[in-house]
Amino acid sequence: MGSDRQLPDSINAGADGRFMTTIAARLAAVRDLLEQADYDALVVPRADEYLGEYIPEHKERLRWISGFTGSAGVALVLRDQAALFVDGRYTVQVRTQVPAELFTYHHLVEEPQAQWLAATLPRGARVACDPRLHSLHWYREMESVLAVAGIELVADTDNLVDRCWRDRPEEVCTPALLLDEAFSGECSSAKRQRMARLITARGCDAALIFAPDSVSWLLNIRGTDMPQLPVVQSFAMLDDTGEVTLFVDSRRLPDGFEAHVGEGVRVLSEADASGALGAYATRRVLADARNASAWIQLELSRLDAILVDGEDPVQLAKACKNAVELAGTRNAHCRDAVAEIRFLAWLDAEVDAGRLHDEAQLSDKLLSFRQQAEHFHAVSFSTISAAGANAAMCHYNHLNGVPARLSAGSVYLLDSGGQYTDGTTDITRTVPIGDPGPEVRRLFTLVLKGHIALAQVRFPRGTTGTQLDALARQFLWREGYDYDHGTGHGVGVFLSVHEGPQRISKVHNAVALRPGMIVSNEPGYYRDGAFGIRCENLQVVRECEDSVGETPVLEFETLTLVPFDTRLLDPALMDAAEIDWLNRYHQRVLETIGPLLQGSDKVWLSQATRPV
Amino acid sequence: MGSDRQLPDSINAGADGRFMTTIAARLAAVRDLLEQADYDALVVPRADEYLGEYIPEHKERLRWISGFTGSAGVALVLRDQAALFVDGRYTVQVRTQVPAELFTYHHLVEEPQAQWLAATLPRGARVACDPRLHSLHWYREMESVLAVAGIELVADTDNLVDRCWRDRPEEVCTPALLLDEAFSGECSSAKRQRMARLITARGCDAALIFAPDSVSWLLNIRGTDMPQLPVVQSFAMLDDTGEVTLFVDSRRLPDGFEAHVGEGVRVLSEADASGALGAYATRRVLADARNASAWIQLELSRLDAILVDGEDPVQLAKACKNAVELAGTRNAHCRDAVAEIRFLAWLDAEVDAGRLHDEAQLSDKLLSFRQQAEHFHAVSFSTISAAGANAAMCHYNHLNGVPARLSAGSVYLLDSGGQYTDGTTDITRTVPIGDPGPEVRRLFTLVLKGHIALAQVRFPRGTTGTQLDALARQFLWREGYDYDHGTGHGVGVFLSVHEGPQRISKVHNAVALRPGMIVSNEPGYYRDGAFGIRCENLQVVRECEDSVGETPVLEFETLTLVPFDTRLLDPALMDAAEIDWLNRYHQRVLETIGPLLQGSDKVWLSQATRPV
Repeated sequence: MGSDRQLPDSINAGADGRFMTTIAARLAAVRDLLEQADYDALVVPRADEYLGEYIPEHKERLRWISGFTGSAGVALVLRDQAALFVDGRYTVQVRTQVPAELFTYHHLVEEPQAQWLAATLPRGARVACDPRLHSLHWYREMESVLAVAGIELVADTDNLVDRCWRDRPEEVCTPALLLDEAFSGECSSAKRQRMARLITARGCDAALIFAPDSVSWLLNIRGTDMPQLPVVQSFAMLDDTGEVTLFVDSRRLPDGFEAHVGEGVRVLSEADASGALGAYATRRVLADARNASAWIQLELSRLDAILVDGEDPVQLAKACKNAVELAGTRNAHCRDAVAEIRFLAWLDAEVDAGRLHDEAQLSDKLLSFRQQAEHFHAVSFSTISAAGANAAMCHYNHLNGVPARLSAGSVYLLDSGGQYTDGTTDITRTVPIGDPGPEVRRLFTLVLKGHIALAQVRFPRGTTGTQLDALARQFLWREGYDYDHGTGHGVGVFLSVHEGPQRISKVHNAVALRPGMIVSNEPGYYRDGAFGIRCENLQVVRECEDSVGETPVLEFETLTLVPFDTRLLDPALMDAAEIDWLNRYHQRVLETIGPLLQGSDKVWLSQATRPV
Repeated sequence: MGSDRQLPDSINAGADGRFMTTIAARLAAVRDLLEQADYDALVVPRADEYLGEYIPEHKERLRWISGFTGSAGVALVLRDQAALFVDGRYTVQVRTQVPAELFTYHHLVEEPQAQWLAATLPRGARVACDPRLHSLHWYREMESVLAVAGIELVADTDNLVDRCWRDRPEEVCTPALLLDEAFSGECSSAKRQRMARLITARGCDAALIFAPDSVSWLLNIRGTDMPQLPVVQSFAMLDDTGEVTLFVDSRRLPDGFEAHVGEGVRVLSEADASGALGAYATRRVLADARNASAWIQLELSRLDAILVDGEDPVQLAKACKNAVELAGTRNAHCRDAVAEIRFLAWLDAEVDAGRLHDEAQLSDKLLSFRQQAEHFHAVSFSTISAAGANAAMCHYNHLNGVPARLSAGSVYLLDSGGQYTDGTTDITRTVPIGDPGPEVRRLFTLVLKGHIALAQVRFPRGTTGTQLDALARQFLWREGYDYDHGTGHGVGVFLSVHEGPQRISKVHNAVALRPGMIVSNEPGYYRDGAFGIRCENLQVVRECEDSVGETPVLEFETLTLVPFDTRLLDPALMDAAEIDWLNRYHQRVLETIGPLLQGSDKVWLSQATRPV
């Protein structure tokens, strides 16, 4: 997981002084425009116009204006000061990346931006934002908080950062892939009809399909511009007839697109959206105020559409994979397991031979194995390759500084995944380098016990991830430990490695787990300055066929087929049922993946899957 | 638990024909008043003006108008038809109690009352309700749904049922008890100061303390009018100075009340409320729209108070018992355990002697043991005494029909509790009568395993009951079983046996479990027409002193000290840790309660607590 990126040389170049000068110059350029437009402040969010977690290079506006590379944050640029708001993950990082002479640092949650602006600016001030980069909910809230303070929020789509950004990277705009029904399991027109019926059931005439992964799923296309996230950057309107108006840069549509999607898909450029949205005057349009952009919804309102706030129905449909998708992702997981196992076997050999590589070399080596797999496109997220104490930082990225070398008597945490035409993977393994000692083994075992509890639970329909989360934590809790992240997120099939709407965490999530949903199962434990442990597999919800009672129950099938490192186990802490689960899982790994390996890799797997 | 009551003879008298004539006559009397007032409908809820679950005899208006005795429901009386709305617990019961010739039956959730009225009555119709008997939330929602249909909701405090009710029982109005600090652990003025600071922190000038249990806790008084619920029927306004205006029938105040509560408590009658509430004009008053009555809040609004919707701060404070209350309830639980154990010993002896009593005799016998306990006042709810298949009905009440006799080869489920000056108890035990067979033992063991998991869990601060609920269900779920009720409710100390704000159930509840909170732990299993099982103890949250990790964790201390019946166990289904928990619990029961018993009861306990 983790999504920080290395600063390109153009920002990092040279000494800190030149960097600060660069940022100062950029702030000055933007402030000129503020003065010209009589704005008192500009909001620069990290988001792009799709409000997602992963954005293309040429949309890295927050990074351009401040140097900050975290996956969430907002800069407020005033005429004579600037403020950078980040959440708890990045309070250390922001201070290393963003010059304190130019920005003050604030906490996104503890100091809401709207209130800060209301307290800092005088009555009559004007705050500019690009409404394409914020949700409608954010916009309305900011607007009303500022209004109480007599401050105006101005929506300006002529983005001020874009107007100043010299040497801006070119937009990457390559043709999408057309996903064959052998991979999607359902043609686009059938999906559109299904979604149309859901729209009608919600009492609406149409829906804004805003998220690019929703659009990509609906049309069975995959993007190639952002390798980790194979979505086609676009949005669409879906009518209750099943007809789609797709707003996309036509350079992203390959030959054969029309035949692929069939009748009923009209293509327009995003620039033509305003004109087209007028067709929804007096119509009830389902749109997600919290997750879709302000601009589109403000336009729809301005053009007299009736906005009905609600989630895009594609999100839940996409979360429930069909049989073809499940068969495909099982195949992808086999190939991914081969790559991971070959890496783990290689790593053991290297350590035995006294060659202790660094985090970057290890990450690259793992990538090289994945690249040999059929249907592999790219990693599904920036690999977390964390040695020793680095693994205690949940959002560690070895590219942010100098990659550390493995050292004896520690553990190595590796969280990685791949995008394959038939599936998306995400796996974390924790590996001993030499003997990390009994304390690490004790905590590893408590983490694994929690993982096993969540892997083998059965639950009735209607059960949510929130209800299951404690199963993964209970053994850590018993001893006075916990982990400060969620237990499981949804995963797509050759789509986003982080999908909703379901989630397994302490945070209330009302979405019931349904057959076909893929979730991660990733408890962990992190000791500052010492070590980090995480045990992650992906698992899919299915109906249970062999329970005896009258209440139908669901269970999980594990998709990931890679051994957990039994050298880190303290078997005395496990009960018979847990040991049995582990041995049966390892047997399944051996039987499924063994035949796909050769030579020393196969031998390694036999040893790694020996019964405990 | 369970709160249904036997219909008094005055309603049940004679043949069904006379009963129906009685109801018909009552409907006719009310309809006369409808016509006089030009009302088209009257809403008759089950609630009284305190909106609680337990109401005094003279407030049983729904029962008077319809015959229905369930703890929740609403009658809508129109000029020429009547409708009775109940929830899923009572769909069978309503049809046995309420004449189908006079009422149509409806489901409270599936057919919302407001929509039914809007669909049934013409535009211009007038619907009357007594605003003292509904929450503000209900009132506003009804008002707005009816308004869309052109129907007016009229608030009329001159209750139409009261005006027709001949031979209405006298209001029971006896002096309250003054609770000594030896039981409360905190004097009223200290509580008032504490709550005043919470009110100020919410940005308010005062709070409506609406719930009688909140008022009783705040003033350290206990009611005597409704034995099962020892609250003083009253409500109060609490200012940010700590001053209280108490609205109560002065017959409920004993001598010494003023000295007991100290300075700063003004007493007015409920009839004088309107006048007094005018003092809150322009003041911000914290009031709970969903849980406090419409009438008081409409009056406050009419008198220009500013209503701030939020929960009464007393509810959470009351939930967290202080050391004195905990010491007191531990004592009460010891005495309650003596009564329960003497009953269980007697029951075993009776069964062994071939004397199979009926459910009423058993319930009465248990009561006779409780009545011998010091500080005992009354049962805390109507005992559920359910033999055989009757226990499969969660809301079974042996007084609703002919009490069944125990039979060999079955189980007997007994859910009961007491109100003591120092505590409130609630316990369920399931007892074999002869040999109920391996299926019952299997299910009993799965239920008990869930109970043990919830009894011994440790969890960090901030954890809610929703997060823990699955621990009690997981072993049933594994085999395809579940139970259709919550796992745990809060309990007061000589207050309500059902308290909030915390709850352990599938339903989302955002209240963190805090030290001092008492909750029930009551998983069960119910097989229609066959048997019912429930294993319930009360437990209190406390800080855990001996965990090793860096995350402080909380745990439960079990208050209930009565053995679970090991004859119903299948030890092969339990693991070593569970058997150990059970044996250590039984050892604690023997050591604590053994010395309080004599003779054959003591022998019985030694046998019942023998290690498994």
